Amino acid sequence: MNRALTPYGLHDLAASVERSELSKRLAKLIKSENHAIGAYESAGRERLSIASQLSDWGESTNDDSISDISDKIGVLMSEIGEQEDLFAQNLEDYRSILKQIRNTEQSVQPSRDNKNKIADEIQKLKYKEPSSPKLVTLEQELVRAEAQNLVAEAQLTNITRQKLKEAYDLNFAATIERAEKQIILAKHGRRLLNLLDDTPVVPGDVRHPFAHGTDARQILADAEHDLQMWQPNLEPVHVNSAGLGSNLMPSEEVATGQSSVADTAEQEVASPSSETTHTKSAAEAQGTHLQQATHA
Amino acid sequence: MNRALTPYGLHDLAASVERSELSKRLAKLIKSENHAIGAYESAGRERLSIASQLSDWGESTNDDSISDISDKIGVLMSEIGEQEDLFAQNLEDYRSILKQIRNTEQSVQPSRDNKNKIADEIQKLKYKEPSSPKLVTLEQELVRAEAQNLVAEAQLTNITRQKLKEAYDLNFAATIERAEKQIILAKHGRRLLNLLDDTPVVPGDVRHPFAHGTDARQILADAEHDLQMWQPNLEPVHVNSAGLGSNLMPSEEVATGQSSVADTAEQEVASPSSETTHTKSAAEAQGTHLQQATHA
Repeated sequence: MNRALTPYGLHDLAASVERSELSKRLAKLIKSENHAIGAYESAGRERLSIASQLSDWGESTNDDSISDISDKIGVLMSEIGEQEDLFAQNLEDYRSILKQIRNTEQSVQPSRDNKNKIADEIQKLKYKEPSSPKLVTLEQELVRAEAQNLVAEAQLTNITRQKLKEAYDLNFAATIERAEKQIILAKHGRRLLNLLDDTPVVPGDVRHPFAHGTDARQILADAEHDLQMWQPNLEPVHVNSAGLGSNLMPSEEVATGQSSVADTAEQEVASPSSETTHTKSAAEAQGTHLQQATHA
Repeated sequence: MNRALTPYGLHDLAASVERSELSKRLAKLIKSENHAIGAYESAGRERLSIASQLSDWGESTNDDSISDISDKIGVLMSEIGEQEDLFAQNLEDYRSILKQIRNTEQSVQPSRDNKNKIADEIQKLKYKEPSSPKLVTLEQELVRAEAQNLVAEAQLTNITRQKLKEAYDLNFAATIERAEKQIILAKHGRRLLNLLDDTPVVPGDVRHPFAHGTDARQILADAEHDLQMWQPNLEPVHVNSAGLGSNLMPSEEVATGQSSVADTAEQEVASPSSETTHTKSAAEAQGTHLQQATHA
């Protein structure tokens, strides 16, 4: 298609399509992430509900061994569920960072459109009125539009690379945090199972009373301790965009540093997370069920 | 309530309520687990979809560095999604083991009901016709019903303890497997991020062509290798129910062994997993996306 011959109406439509083109892919991804986050929140909620159902069932068996063990498995399951929820909150923060790229994409599009529109007008005028004095004005406008667009495109590449690294630094750190904490909980869970004697009995045999109550409580205390001692231990993601100014351009003092989103998660996400609806603090998701169980 | 005075209709109702009582808690838990499994399946599906959206977006930026990195992050995200799905499949197997406890609970209830019903009839007859010759027959029936119930209750405690350990052995092993594999993938993901130069540019600067294509491919190859080398390394859950016969009683040769569901997962779940709808083999969920990406 010869763009110079495009009638205005169609051209405007093409520009509008192009505008949505630039940010539409990321907008779709951000929407899909919302579904994924919803799924993890749902899994977390179900885990909490299952944990109390397991405890209720154990009590209803009138078998004190099963009752004690299933209650404590329930405590560990609740914590595993809390970790799913904390993971969902972290993904929400990661999603907010992606939104910053999408917003820049949306704001850069008019600058591209404007530059193309003036270039098209010049082509059209050269075809219809090659000697029009308006051509000089348009050429001057084009130079200004191109300069403005150069700035916009530099801002876009700067913000895209910086935020892409930041977003996936956070995403991978959250994946590792959930995984390491759930491993702690599941390993202690396996210890609990070994306290349940499953030696078969013959009819009329009476099961011995549960003799491992203290051991079982100790396992929960160990799990709580290990969870509280947990610290992120991540290979750093190197950041070279420390010199990015608020105008999305290199600022005077370009500092190159090593830092990880994980180290500075609280400051970094302070602004984007205002978009999220989660208000639960990380401390709340950190072993509450274990504390309740071990300090009761 | 004096059960001896309960009219038949109400008594039958009470028995029916009691029957559902015994298995209803576990039935509810099994239903909740189905929701949790659905949530993990949904999370896995979304992850796969997000991975290809990320790759598409990266390509659309016309920035070869972003295109290469986002495509490879997408590959790792797909694998993380596959691990969610494999986890959901393992939870389905765990859920099938819980169903075996619930089924035994359901089958034991009529034996309890029958014993109670005969005892009630004897009470009623003693009150209405203390000298009835039918009392002798009923007393004999009660002895037989009690003997039958003793067997049923022994079967119930044997199956409950054995399957509870087996179910949560599998559950915790699956939690650890997902966590360890996702840690492998996320750690290599963080290495990938370091190949993206996010040094800000000024307007008019041209980004250097992506110089780390070989490194990026090597990271995916490393991730694939680490995933293939992964082996479960679990504290064993001790099993004392090796001597449990098919009649759910101790068999002649009572062997006490140490084994873990994780070691024998394939045989163990062969029967319960027939209830599940998953047909994808573990091998399929083991690094397919990485293989496609690294051997393309």
